[in-house]
Amino acid sequence: MADEETILALVLGLERSALDRWGKGDPDGYLEINAPDVTYFDPFVERRLDGIAALTNWYDQVRGKIKIDRDEIVDPLFQLIGEAAILTFQFVSHGSEGAMRWNCTEVYRKVDGDWKIVHSHWSFAKNKI
Amino acid sequence: MADEETILALVLGLERSALDRWGKGDPDGYLEINAPDVTYFDPFVERRLDGIAALTNWYDQVRGKIKIDRDEIVDPLFQLIGEAAILTFQFVSHGSEGAMRWNCTEVYRKVDGDWKIVHSHWSFAKNKI
Repeated sequence: MADEETILALVLGLERSALDRWGKGDPDGYLEINAPDVTYFDPFVERRLDGIAALTNWYDQVRGKIKIDRDEIVDPLFQLIGEAAILTFQFVSHGSEGAMRWNCTEVYRKVDGDWKIVHSHWSFAKNKI
Repeated sequence: MADEETILALVLGLERSALDRWGKGDPDGYLEINAPDVTYFDPFVERRLDGIAALTNWYDQVRGKIKIDRDEIVDPLFQLIGEAAILTFQFVSHGSEGAMRWNCTEVYRKVDGDWKIVHSHWSFAKNKI
């Protein structure tokens, strides 16, 4: 399972790096690791966003507005299915939006040798902290 | 792509049948199509539920309490990755809980010839209707 562990460490590293940039108001970290055919839900979009162009348009609206002082990926878990990796966790953050706890699903797919997000679902967890 | 279309029709049928039973207060339709290693988020659980035993315990608490009069799977979309199928949609329902709109992610995996849910993420959509 060494290969599987390598994949999991790689994907978790991608997510952490994207979050680090996100917390500085920079959504490009995420945009760079999203696949062209990504689908996306969060509590602020009225409908599912389909495709990187729709996601880019959405992220451009929050660019520079978010500042996270400290955060944590809580209890990450992977389910690996061939070239699909489902990463689920809760995300706790403290910053410009106050204290937040999210439920998060990220499905990664191997695309031309790189792991890219093909589906994201972010939602508010029951309890903030 | 005939094979792919067959899979998609099959999986959407599984979801619809499970929802039909759910709307009559019967969670067993879902429990029967969940995999042993399912992971699960909804807005009412404090943490991710891991495994069919945890999900069964949770669903047992709502058994018989939900009554959906009419509902709709809105704009379902599939992303097929080998033996993983990501189904995303919004779900609009009218019934005992009032009018609801959900964002929904269901990841199915082929397990011993049957498609089973390995990850569910249900959350409130921005607008109810």
